[in-house]
Order: sequence, then structure tokens, then C-alpha cells
Amino acid sequence: MTKPKLRIGLIGTGFMGKAHVFGFTSAPRVFELPYDLVLHTVADITPEAAARAAQTLGFAHSTADWRSIIADPEIDLVSITAPNALHKEMSLAAIAAGKHVYCEKPLAPLANDALEMTLAAEARGVKTQVGFNYLCNPMLSLARDMIAAGELGEIRGYRGIHCEDYMADPAGPYTFRHDPAGGGALADIGSHALATAEFLCGPITRVMGDCITMITDRPDGRGGRKAVTVDDVGRAFVRFENGATGSIEGNWIATGRKMQHDFEVYGTKGALAFSQEHFNVLNYFSTADAKGRQGFRRIEAGPDHAPYGLFCVAAGHQIGFNDLKAIEVAGYINAIAGKASEPFNFRKGLRIQTLVETIQRSSAAGQWLDIK
Amino acid sequence: MTKPKLRIGLIGTGFMGKAHVFGFTSAPRVFELPYDLVLHTVADITPEAAARAAQTLGFAHSTADWRSIIADPEIDLVSITAPNALHKEMSLAAIAAGKHVYCEKPLAPLANDALEMTLAAEARGVKTQVGFNYLCNPMLSLARDMIAAGELGEIRGYRGIHCEDYMADPAGPYTFRHDPAGGGALADIGSHALATAEFLCGPITRVMGDCITMITDRPDGRGGRKAVTVDDVGRAFVRFENGATGSIEGNWIATGRKMQHDFEVYGTKGALAFSQEHFNVLNYFSTADAKGRQGFRRIEAGPDHAPYGLFCVAAGHQIGFNDLKAIEVAGYINAIAGKASEPFNFRKGLRIQTLVETIQRSSAAGQWLDIK
Amino acid sequence: MTKPKLRIGLIGTGFMGKAHVFGFTSAPRVFELPYDLVLHTVADITPEAAARAAQTLGFAHSTADWRSIIADPEIDLVSITAPNALHKEMSLAAIAAGKHVYCEKPLAPLANDALEMTLAAEARGVKTQVGFNYLCNPMLSLARDMIAAGELGEIRGYRGIHCEDYMADPAGPYTFRHDPAGGGALADIGSHALATAEFLCGPITRVMGDCITMITDRPDGRGGRKAVTVDDVGRAFVRFENGATGSIEGNWIATGRKMQHDFEVYGTKGALAFSQEHFNVLNYFSTADAKGRQGFRRIEAGPDHAPYGLFCVAAGHQIGFNDLKAIEVAGYINAIAGKASEPFNFRKGLRIQTLVETIQRSSAAGQWLDIK
Amino acid sequence: MTKPKLRIGLIGTGFMGKAHVFGFTSAPRVFELPYDLVLHTVADITPEAAARAAQTLGFAHSTADWRSIIADPEIDLVSITAPNALHKEMSLAAIAAGKHVYCEKPLAPLANDALEMTLAAEARGVKTQVGFNYLCNPMLSLARDMIAAGELGEIRGYRGIHCEDYMADPAGPYTFRHDPAGGGALADIGSHALATAEFLCGPITRVMGDCITMITDRPDGRGGRKAVTVDDVGRAFVRFENGATGSIEGNWIATGRKMQHDFEVYGTKGALAFSQEHFNVLNYFSTADAKGRQGFRRIEAGPDHAPYGLFCVAAGHQIGFNDLKAIEVAGYINAIAGKASEPFNFRKGLRIQTLVETIQRSSAAGQWLDIK
Repeated sequence: MTKPKLRIGLIGTGFMGKAHVFGFTSAPRVFELPYDLVLHTVADITPEAAARAAQTLGFAHSTADWRSIIADPEIDLVSITAPNALHKEMSLAAIAAGKHVYCEKPLAPLANDALEMTLAAEARGVKTQVGFNYLCNPMLSLARDMIAAGELGEIRGYRGIHCEDYMADPAGPYTFRHDPAGGGALADIGSHALATAEFLCGPITRVMGDCITMITDRPDGRGGRKAVTVDDVGRAFVRFENGATGSIEGNWIATGRKMQHDFEVYGTKGALAFSQEHFNVLNYFSTADAKGRQGFRRIEAGPDHAPYGLFCVAAGHQIGFNDLKAIEVAGYINAIAGKASEPFNFRKGLRIQTLVETIQRSSAAGQWLDIK
Repeated sequence: MTKPKLRIGLIGTGFMGKAHVFGFTSAPRVFELPYDLVLHTVADITPEAAARAAQTLGFAHSTADWRSIIADPEIDLVSITAPNALHKEMSLAAIAAGKHVYCEKPLAPLANDALEMTLAAEARGVKTQVGFNYLCNPMLSLARDMIAAGELGEIRGYRGIHCEDYMADPAGPYTFRHDPAGGGALADIGSHALATAEFLCGPITRVMGDCITMITDRPDGRGGRKAVTVDDVGRAFVRFENGATGSIEGNWIATGRKMQHDFEVYGTKGALAFSQEHFNVLNYFSTADAKGRQGFRRIEAGPDHAPYGLFCVAAGHQIGFNDLKAIEVAGYINAIAGKASEPFNFRKGLRIQTLVETIQRSSAAGQWLDIK
Repeated sequence: MTKPKLRIGLIGTGFMGKAHVFGFTSAPRVFELPYDLVLHTVADITPEAAARAAQTLGFAHSTADWRSIIADPEIDLVSITAPNALHKEMSLAAIAAGKHVYCEKPLAPLANDALEMTLAAEARGVKTQVGFNYLCNPMLSLARDMIAAGELGEIRGYRGIHCEDYMADPAGPYTFRHDPAGGGALADIGSHALATAEFLCGPITRVMGDCITMITDRPDGRGGRKAVTVDDVGRAFVRFENGATGSIEGNWIATGRKMQHDFEVYGTKGALAFSQEHFNVLNYFSTADAKGRQGFRRIEAGPDHAPYGLFCVAAGHQIGFNDLKAIEVAGYINAIAGKASEPFNFRKGLRIQTLVETIQRSSAAGQWLDIK
Repeated sequence: MTKPKLRIGLIGTGFMGKAHVFGFTSAPRVFELPYDLVLHTVADITPEAAARAAQTLGFAHSTADWRSIIADPEIDLVSITAPNALHKEMSLAAIAAGKHVYCEKPLAPLANDALEMTLAAEARGVKTQVGFNYLCNPMLSLARDMIAAGELGEIRGYRGIHCEDYMADPAGPYTFRHDPAGGGALADIGSHALATAEFLCGPITRVMGDCITMITDRPDGRGGRKAVTVDDVGRAFVRFENGATGSIEGNWIATGRKMQHDFEVYGTKGALAFSQEHFNVLNYFSTADAKGRQGFRRIEAGPDHAPYGLFCVAAGHQIGFNDLKAIEVAGYINAIAGKASEPFNFRKGLRIQTLVETIQRSSAAGQWLDIK
């Protein structure tokens, strides 16, 4: 009658580390999970920081050496929220130790690294998850299901963007996000637009990229400037396997935009429009509505849109960003138990990086490229 | 260095029970709290249900007798999410036992009962909290602070509503919410509109009510119909102590509305407009903006609006309904530690019921009444 | 084959005078009218101003004596856009001369005057029109038709407002709009909210008013201050003959609001929401939509919503404020030809003033009053 | 003292013919124009149709031979609203006769034709105008002026679309809009997006096009199908001379969209967002707003935004599509009098067709092209 335990080790205690813990503690109270989740050990840079994190976040143990988490036979699942540059090494070590790995995006700086990680996980048979939590939104599931069920007819057109303004200020310093290996707006947030596009409409087969560096140097933190070569804006024309065409934009210098992860999808029978700024809403147009009564319907998330109802008993209350993480965790834990497929595993993370890199190469070449 | 423990007993395991637990588990991971919160005992109707709830929700103990929670000297705080009719008896028992009491709204069916509970808590010196979590929204704090700081100038007009449609269907059965003692749309959700109005603009001094029963009987669950006498719509004209005038509406038969907890407040220098359907947004008009450039500004919740930043590091991500409960819990726990005043204690809960009842009496009398 | 002529005399050349001319010149190019409209004579204060107006506006003749328009046997229709205080005298004179009268709102300062004018027009058999052009919006016709056809089911609730901010500044001078005879926000713009309410839902039978003067004196233009006694905000609870209840607000000190002529109407099967700030849109909720697909639909005005198609061949282009005047003129001209009933004749203008005055008396008395 | 007359001949009496007449009759009543506009002669296919149009539209004369308008020495200005295929022949004839020419868009099927027309007009010294009336919106002038004045800082990014759904139905017949010479979504409505882009941000210097035919044949009206080769969707990446980058989309199969002529423009100090579906509104974000008070401001068109005030005395009333035509006419008439430059002359019309054709060629070539 008692559930088996799933013991968790967490590496990294920043914003995303906390978000993972939020997911681990919230998911079991919202969902019926097949395991008891145990916050076993947390790793941070110093023993003091790790001990403090253990107390705040509720872990039983702490360590300043992330490898001790890998080595601990008690631990079943490793959450990796350390800096991007370490994702590969940590993931491969955890996989080699037979642990399930939950790694924040981006999986690795380059698609080749992500491929190596993916193959390792698949060979070892562990379950993996990459943090793409916007996809866990019940309204995105609704959109995907409506498309799959043919409610929009044949899909013809798509417009997906993810624009923010956190790099709009040229006085903002050079960071790891500007690293030529894996950095730039397209990789950082355009990746979300790509993930949503394929989540909804299926595989992209061909792209034409346009990646631009607008702010060509930034303060290096030592009084000088450092050249930036990654894109501030990354656009793409895309073709989908289903015959639709579309466009994608990732833009981190879009002054005033905080979370413009938006899409519009047009089919022969209907259309959908969505903005992450109101992510509990999906707008739906149906050509089946009566003449003179047609218009985009503002559907508000509610119990009809699972798993919203597990969070709130009535429509209109709204779930928040952190709740999306709980949904992600629940999906992943069910996958570990073999009750569902992995929501967004390493192979899918690899896929996104392949798309990003192909768009970047297309932009550099000035020509269309197939996605391989 | 270790924090003192605060041991929690929960009575009731429905939607609000879960919301309390969510708050208790989420708040410590988001806020620096002065106590370690311990989920000690949960009470449900049967031992089996209680045991199941303990496992799901993470309580160490369970009981089918809520009085054993009261009697347990280890327990410091009692959360009451049982049916409204029991709030008074449970609260008075917990207060008598010297426990802090966190009671869901409405505090009690009638203001007289709420008064008795308030006086008991004040006499015993325990800290109390009534669940009015819409008020915990950072954007409402922003609105209140802007008003208090004079950013809107002198306040002149207010319009506050809370409309939903969960009672719109006449085939919906008679429930405890239709009980003449404490039921009706004004008490159930108009109370939120009243709480927000006073939260923002200060005391209401005078009201003229208009409470209407539109659906005069409902299925009694035994094949017959039962007369309904409580209001489906409760409106009021109001006067504020600060000189402003306004109107309030609570309406549970507003077809299509899921969470129309909206307000508009007009001052001599600016105005605010808000809808709970987009509760991470506050719209702000300033007469100080340049000519030809004036307009309502759509301010999105972000780290500038505490405590939003503890949940999400960037604007636009949005907090959800359950996060409001975590904010409520954090405020209450700080109040228990003497570090802050109680966010919404029994006296404030009493105040809302006084407003509701005065509006109802005013409606019945067809004349303006002072709030006493 | 040639159409008969309808010769028009215009008194007053301000904003509304121009709007009338706009209507007279635009309507025949948009609609098939039964008459050729001839701009015969325009009257202004001085011969020079009148001559200038004739040239600009396209009238054949001009005069500084409005009575000469009344006396001219060639003139069939008199448009009165002179100051409100003159509406009665001018209208009665024109009616006595057997002319059709198109008078701007308000018909007269007081309902008694409006009654006298109405009875005179009815006795003489001339066709009358009062300018209530918001009602000429195709989306309001759509709303009315949907309600009448039962698309919303039984109507239960209504909320109508008309809020602007043109009197928000206390430094704004005392004007004719502050005259105790017929002035105030309720009369000036709340009247529009009342007209729309009855246009959509039928007769109001009972009201409870709340009329407030917030700015109690204003500059008198001679260096002093003059007391203001009319309302800056006029609210009412209302009862409709069809069983619905509702509220109304007229408010001319609503900082930031330019044209908040909004309504929401709730029925057993659906709801409508409208804002004049986007008057080419009507939002419609239907309970007949599929579960999980329900939401307010944003219907954009188009050729399906007559007479929009006469102005624009496709939806989304939008008609403007002045186009509403053309629609009003077309309706009135057809009524003069006996092809339709008067869109909004003096009796309807009288009705609005009766509502306004009853609400004002109810407010003063602090009690509900029947509309007689 | 009397104004000189400007005599107008109109060729074509369809929707745009009526819109021209609307502009000619409305503009003089709204603006102080340097000429008296005289509706002299209208040409239609048959004498009967022309006579009927003359009566309805208010022309003194009518003809079934458009060449008689060209030949009439009394006529100063020729409005051409006949089918696109005739624009060139008619324009060249009118120019040769020394008349001013007001031609609907597109100026001609191909840029080469437009060039010939432009050179002819410039050589003859007549004033020309192409109908691009969305640009006449006061809110677009506001946007352009704000950008020019540096209110947004340096412009970095642009997104412009024009999406409608009038060709979404594959059962819709083949029309002149599908003619390979000058047809397609990019030419038909993407041209508006391009015109707006350059109106606001200045010259586009380089493009990468993506033009797609989704519906490859349509009913030919004789029971068969006819192949369609023009684009249903035309997208482009663009570079502006000012250093900004952007994207453009024209799409006439965007199910549910009626007038999505939208743009967003991002600068270092601010941003603007606009939708033609609410064309009396401009949304403006300023980084100069106080911390915690920033957000997109919804500026409503009003008297501060010339020439809005000539149509309506107060903000929020809204001008309509036809009013834009009156503004276009007023600008053109002033240009004829030498008091202003031509708002959108043949050379500008040529420019748009050059952009369209370059994008189409770029798409076919699969590579970036400079605009020459």
C-alpha cells in the first residue's frame, strides 16, 4: 500500500533549482504519483551554501561535491540546474551511474553534445527530461489536441515568437548567454518558440534563418568591452511536414516585452491565437460558428482542460509559472514509473538544438536548409 | 540556529484544505519564514479518509475527530477548512485551547457569530487569519501603495465587482451556499469585492443595497424543489470615509464570467483598472503623462512588485492562484512570530460580514444605512 | 424617376451642426434614400458667420435669424443644434410651421418641456428625431436582435455605464452643462447608458438613484467661483419589465476614460459585452458552445451586420463615429417618407429625460421610485 | 474670396469609386481646402449605369466612355477606380491630357508599368496619388512622428503583418487577384504592410522573401479548376537603412483574421504596437517611465493627434475607414494646390511594387536581394 520512494539529488540551487524543488514538493500534492518523492541531497558550491540550501529547500543531506550525488547509490534521480557549461559532464556521469536525469535547458551548448547525451541515456535505459515547461500548460495541450483532432482542419500557417527585453540594454554585461557556443536569443528563447511550434504542428522539415547581432559588444566586467557574436534576434521561415508554412522569431532586445511567447496557427476550419502573457487563455476561431456570430473565442483555462482542475476547482483562477513545473515533474515521474512516455526527453532537447543550429547555419549561408 | 517549529493541524481536506497545505509547503521555500512549518495532523470524516489525506498531503498523523487536534498540546496552529456551519464551533474551541486559527471565509454565517469569535481570539491573544487570498496579489499591493502614496491624487470614484456564473444554471441543486444564514452571492463573492474596495480605498461608511433572488427555487436533491431566498445578485452604492463614492456588485449568475473580480478606481491625478482574469496585470492612467501620450498603461507583475520576485525572477511569467495562498500563509506566519501585523484577521473578517449584512438590511429596508 | 426633394434648414454650426451636415451629405451616398436632400439654409449668430458656414458646409443660403428658417415655406426639415436652452422654443416654432424636426439631445432641460414638445409634434403630425447616434451602431442592432430572438435566453442582469473624464479637472469652468435645469453627468452622458439599456432590454420600470456632486464649485469665468449642484456621478439600480435587474452609471469625472459607454447583459443562455471604445466589436458568450470550447467571442462588425456593408465591403475595416450619424439620418429620412418608424423620436427623447429625472428624484429622496 | 474650382472625373463606381466620392464630399466639410471640389463626370460601363451612378453619387454628368473624361478640358482631376488591368492605360491617357491622377492601388500589375506611369507624371508635372489610405491614420502619423523625434531611441526591430481570410476558402473562385501579373497576397495586402514599414522606419534596403501558394487551383467559373501560381502567403526578412531588421507577412488565408494590419516597432528607448483592428489606438512603451510603473500605454486617438480633432471633438469617439479616405483626399488636394507634398504619389506606389517584386524574386531565387 505504501508507495516506493524515489530519491532525488539536486545540483544547483538558483532560480531553476528552486523551481525544481517547487515541482517536486508541489506535484505529489496535486497529482496521484506512483512514487513518494524524497528530497535526498542537494549540492552547492560550498558546504555552507549547500547546508543552507538543504534547510531552506527541505533536503535531508547536503554536499559541496556534486559527484557525491552521482556516487550515492540511494539516489534515483538527479536534477541538474547548474550552469549550462556543466550540463553535459554532469548528465553523462549520472547516466553512467544509472540515474534518471532531469536537466534544465539547454541540454548542452551544441547539438553534438546533446546527441552524445541522448545516446548515452537511451543506451543506459534511464529516463530523461529537459525543462521546457511552457509546453506543460493545459492550454497548449488543448491547442495540440484540437489540432490533432482536426478541429482546425488542415493546418496551413503558423507564426511563433518569443520576445523579451532582458538584453535590450547595451550596458548590460557580457554573460554566459553571449557565449558563441550555444548562446544567443534564438538558442535561449527562440528555442521555446521552436519547441511550441513542433509540439503543436509536428516536425519542421526545412528552414531559412536570419540571425542578427545588434549589440556588438558589451561590458566585460573589467572595465572593457567584449565582442558579442551571438544573435540578438533570430528569425526563421519554416516548413512543416504537414504542409504548413510559418515563421519563428526569438528576440531578447524587444523593448517592453516580458514574455511574448505567442503563437497563431491557421487551419482550413479554424485558428488559434495565444500569448504567454495570458497563458491561461486560448483564443479560438471556428468557421463552423453561425454567420454573423463568428469571432475569436477567449477560452479561459478551467477544469475542462486537464490538469488545470487539479490546481483549481474553477475556471478563471489561473495557474502560475511554477505550477507548470509541477506538471512537468508529474509527467516525468509517471514516465519513470513506465506509466507514460517522457514528456520532453533528451532526444527532444537534442531536436530543439538541431533546429537552432540549422537555423543559425542557414542564416550564415543565406540559404534554405533541410532539418536532418 | 535551527528555527522553532510551528505545528499545524488541518481540519477539512477539500479544495481549500489542499490550498492551505499548498501554502504551508510552498511558503517556506519561497519566503524566509521565522518557523519551520510542520504538517502535524489532519482531520477528516472517517479514519480511512483522514489516513489517505495524511499520506497525500504529507501530514504525520491523522484523525477522524477534529477535537483531538484541538486537544493536542503539540499543535500550534489550526487550519479550519470544514463546512462554513462549523467554523464558529471549531474556531472557538481552538482559541480556547490557545491555538492560532486560520479559518476559511466566511468566518461565520452571521456577523454576530464572527464578533463572538473575534472577541474570543483577541481576549486569548492568539493570531488569526481569514482566507481572503485575492488581497495577497502583488498587483493589489501595488494599487494600494499607489493610492496611499497619492499617485492617483484624491480618490473620487470606485467600481468593484465580483461576478461568476457557477449558479447560473437553475437546474443546479440547493446547497449550503443557499442557506439563508450567511448564503447568497453578496456574501459568497461580493464579499471579495468589498474586501478589495476597503483594502484599496479604506473604510466604507454608508451603503444602499440591492439584493435580488432571481432563481427562486432549486432542486432539493430528493426530487423536489426547495425555495431559495438568498440573493443571486447583490449590488450596493457605497460611500468611503475618504470622500469617494462607488458601487459594488456580487453576482453568481453572470453567464460566461469565471473570475470577474474587477475594479476601477478614479482619482484626481490618475486611475487604475484591474481584472482578476489577468491578475498579474494592473492598468494605470496618469494625468502627468505628456499630452498626446496619455493612456492606460498595462503594468505586468514583475520583481518590482514584491513579493512577485520570490516566485519568478522576471516579469511576465505570472504567479497563479495557489501562489496567492503561499503569500497569505507567509504573512500570517510572520504575524504569529510578531514580525508583522495579521494580514486579514478575524476582526477584518467580521468587518466584511458587517458590510454584507448591512447591505442586505439596506436592501430589505430600501434605504441607505450607515456602517456601524 | 427623379426623387422628390427634402429641403433642410440647419440652426447651429458647431460640432453637432457639422455632424448633421455630415449625415445629410453622407447618408445619400451610402443608402438608397427616398428623397434628394437639399442643404437649403443655415443659420448662425451673425450674417458673416452664417455666410461662412454656408460656404464651408455647402448650404445654398444663410441667415442670422433662425426664425427665417422657420418661416421659409420651402424648408421641410429643421435641424436644431443650437444651445440646449433654445431647443424647446425652436422646436415648437418649427413644429407649428409643419416642419419635421431633428433636434440634438437633450431634447429640453426638463421632462415637462420635452413632453410639451412631444405632444406638439404628435398633434401636428410631423416626424421628429433626437440625436442618440450611439444606438445607430450595427453592433447594437445585432445585440438587440440577438436578445429579441432569444439567443441569450431569458435576460437576467445588466450593467451599463457611460464614463468620460471631460469634467475631471476642477479648474474647468462652469458651463451650461452645470445648469441645474437639465445638467449633470447623468443627464449629459448617463442618458446614453439609459438609452442603450432600454434599446436592448426594453422598459425600465423602477429605479433607485445615487447622484453625487464631487466638484462643488467651478470658475465662473469672471475670476470667482460658482457653486455646482448637478451630479458629477449619477448611478442607478434598475428593474426591467422583462424581469432583469441592473445598474447604470453616468460619470464625467472618470479620469482617463474617453468613451467608456459599455454594457454587459447576462441571460440564461448567453451574454454580451460591449465597449464603445471598440464599437465595431461585440463580445458574445454562448452556453451552447461545446464544453471546453466556451468563451466570449469577439465578433467584428462586417457585412453580416447591416448596414455596415454599405460603408465597407469587408469586416474589420470599421466605421467611425460620423458614420453613425449617417445611419441616424438615413433612418430618419426613411421615417419621413413613411417607410419606417422614427428611429428615436421626441417621445423616446422624453422617455430618457423621464428616466433621468426619476433617478435624480429617487436619489434626493433616498428611495426607489417607479417610472411613470 | 471664392475658391477656385477643381473639377473631378471618376472612372469606376464600385466600392473604391464610392470611397473616392466619399472622400471628395467629406474632405471639404472637415478640412479647409484650397479648392471647391466639383463632382463633374462619372464613367461607368453603360450609359444607364453611369447615369444612375451620377444621380446616386452626385455627379453633374455621366458617360459610358471613360475617354470622354480624359478629353473633357473642364476636368482637372481623374480618379481611377476601374479594374487594375486598366490603371496604366487610363493613367497615361489622363497624364498626357495634363490631368492630375488619383489611382487606386496597385498602380499597375508590374513595377515596370508603374515606372512608366511615374515617369510620365513627373515629366508632365501633374500631381498623382495612389490609394494607400491606412497610412492616413492619425495614429500612424503619431507613430512616425514619435520615431522621427527619437522618442523610441534608435530603431532596432520591426514586425509588420497584414493578414486577412478572404481567400481562405479553396472553393472561392479564381479572380483577377490570382493573375500572375501583379496578383497574390503579398501584392494585394502585404503591400500595405510594406508601405507602413517604410512610412514608419524609412527605406528597406535588402530582403529575403518566402512566397507560398497553398491553394494551387480554384474554380474557374465554368465548372473546371484553374491553376493558381501567385502566393497565398508572402513573408520577408528585411533590413532597413536605419540599421533595424524586421519581418513582413502578407497572408490572405489567415482564417478568422479580418484586418490584421499590425506592427510592432522596437527601439532602444521605447516600443510601439498597433493593430488595424483597433486603429484608433496606439500602444506605447517608454523606458523612461518609473520603475514598477512601466507598461504599454493604450493611447486613444483624440484631438491631440491631428487631424482627428477635425472629425470628432473628443478622444474615444473614433474615426472610421472612410474617414481615412477623406484625410487622403485632403492631403492630395493640398498637394495639387502646392501647399504640401503629395502624400503617396506614383513614385511611392512604384516603390511598393518594387519591394513586392524584389521579395517575390528573392523567394524564387532562395536568396537575399538588394532593393534597387
